Amino acid sequence: MPNNGYPWVREAIAARMSVEQGVTVTQAEMLLTCGAAGGLNVVFKALLNPGEEVILLAPYFVEYNFYLDNHGGVGRVVNTDQDFNLDLPAIAAAISEKTKAIIINSPNNPTGQIYPEEALTALGVILEEAGKRFGSTIYLIADEPYRKIIFDGNIVPGIFRTYRNSIVVSSYSKDLSLPGERIGYLAVHPEIDDKTALLDAMNLANRILGFVNAPALMQRVVAELQDVTVDTAIYARRREIFCSILRDAGYTFLAPRGAFYIFPQAPIQDDVRFIALLQEEKILAVPGVGFGAPGYFRLAFCVGDEVIKRSAEGFRQAMRKATAGI
Amino acid sequence: MPNNGYPWVREAIAARMSVEQGVTVTQAEMLLTCGAAGGLNVVFKALLNPGEEVILLAPYFVEYNFYLDNHGGVGRVVNTDQDFNLDLPAIAAAISEKTKAIIINSPNNPTGQIYPEEALTALGVILEEAGKRFGSTIYLIADEPYRKIIFDGNIVPGIFRTYRNSIVVSSYSKDLSLPGERIGYLAVHPEIDDKTALLDAMNLANRILGFVNAPALMQRVVAELQDVTVDTAIYARRREIFCSILRDAGYTFLAPRGAFYIFPQAPIQDDVRFIALLQEEKILAVPGVGFGAPGYFRLAFCVGDEVIKRSAEGFRQAMRKATAGI
Repeated sequence: MPNNGYPWVREAIAARMSVEQGVTVTQAEMLLTCGAAGGLNVVFKALLNPGEEVILLAPYFVEYNFYLDNHGGVGRVVNTDQDFNLDLPAIAAAISEKTKAIIINSPNNPTGQIYPEEALTALGVILEEAGKRFGSTIYLIADEPYRKIIFDGNIVPGIFRTYRNSIVVSSYSKDLSLPGERIGYLAVHPEIDDKTALLDAMNLANRILGFVNAPALMQRVVAELQDVTVDTAIYARRREIFCSILRDAGYTFLAPRGAFYIFPQAPIQDDVRFIALLQEEKILAVPGVGFGAPGYFRLAFCVGDEVIKRSAEGFRQAMRKATAGI
Repeated sequence: MPNNGYPWVREAIAARMSVEQGVTVTQAEMLLTCGAAGGLNVVFKALLNPGEEVILLAPYFVEYNFYLDNHGGVGRVVNTDQDFNLDLPAIAAAISEKTKAIIINSPNNPTGQIYPEEALTALGVILEEAGKRFGSTIYLIADEPYRKIIFDGNIVPGIFRTYRNSIVVSSYSKDLSLPGERIGYLAVHPEIDDKTALLDAMNLANRILGFVNAPALMQRVVAELQDVTVDTAIYARRREIFCSILRDAGYTFLAPRGAFYIFPQAPIQDDVRFIALLQEEKILAVPGVGFGAPGYFRLAFCVGDEVIKRSAEGFRQAMRKATAGI
């Protein structure tokens, strides 16, 4: 097998992506990777020169900063708006001659937000114009392992239709519930700048970073499962149970549109301290500060219905303690 | 599963390693990795500060240089002796205050050499003394995916018995003939310096380099196959066929003691040019210059007997052309 994966596996993925993205993608524009984390490291190794910046939208997955640091890159954080949507003027203001890329994660971990197509189209225009102004290419990297886990008939827009210099990185850990098998892929827009050089660099990066190739057996498995996903009705039901518990206990939050996380406001400013209060109730949450969003906390609903239901009293109790100033 | 792998899988590997190394190794000293290439990248990410040196013994696997460069390290090449064995005085002379580690590969790709125990014991003394002199720890990294592919009753000495600050990195690609599944491991000596910090760093490196963990299903597979290996008699037979062809055609070479490579001298100094002559005969070989050993070329005998047999006339023809100065 070539290091970028079995051609027929890439063809199967390209066929599905062509529909999702509304742009014809072929196996030649694609690389099988060791999950999305492996794919992102390959992309950054191929793209970045020391000191170049990648815009991260807070709240963001904390490990992006490590991935950048691995390859000499620097994260530049831009906050999303109060609904966790793209703050386009803030993004435009953060772009400089050092900007190599921006990474978006939609549906988002930790907020469950999905960026709408109009915002992505406007983002494409901003990146295109900034690239012209600085005489550079600014890449849009979409990390989208939650694409198929969506609720209420939402759709995840294809970024290939909104911006030419874009790269999609994804994984099957979530949509096939295959965590630990380390199988994912990346694909570049068919008309991306320096396409051949970029794909060659990614292929070499995949090899020399020690991935060499995506696990061979799992490549064969996912090729047969391109139109399949876990039953999202289960996640939708758990989301309902969870939202209802949080609403009743008085928390402020955005009902997630996709993925399996909720990112409520902590009732006190110190999210790490609030996490400790939840822990006293045997509830495991992650402080928002780790996502670049202090004052919030992340909950995951990839656990059983009963576990979620049993947490109701704990959430009420933690809210009581927090607002009583204990 | 923890990012360093299923504990019971690590236990199965530790039990076999304890016998091989003659030192009791436990699951706590071990990390499942995405093959040996992934393991080496994890080791280098954990160990290296920018500009620190790792001694490479030529001929060496060419990708070591890339792995070092990924993490800010610098390779310092030391030649082996005329039999491709350790040149201990040359190694001693190459050690400086910048030296962080030395990497050995035994059985060796490309030479098939196995370093004898006395030489490894002497190497341990050299590293220990140099470490004291420079007030540092110099790590010995053994990359040994070919440990079980050995001929003529040779044995591969366990480096844990010869040096305390040592790390073993390996893979199942070769001994189970599972290339592409990306399953391997690393283990540190139970009494290695800064053991806890080092293992923590490796665990984090495994995660943030994007491996996250070794492929989960394959972890379960190899746990059941610790005492199994491919039938090495097949490789031994192919080695005989190949050596006899090369001998008859007038090539100078060392009969490999392990692995499945032969590294003959090119009959002309320019190995790249000689490779082209072999290619005219439809024989695929790799020039020695890529292994830091110009004037040689690498042949692999992980191909069928018939393919090897059919190459006889080609090797004679290439020798004729080379010596005729064509």
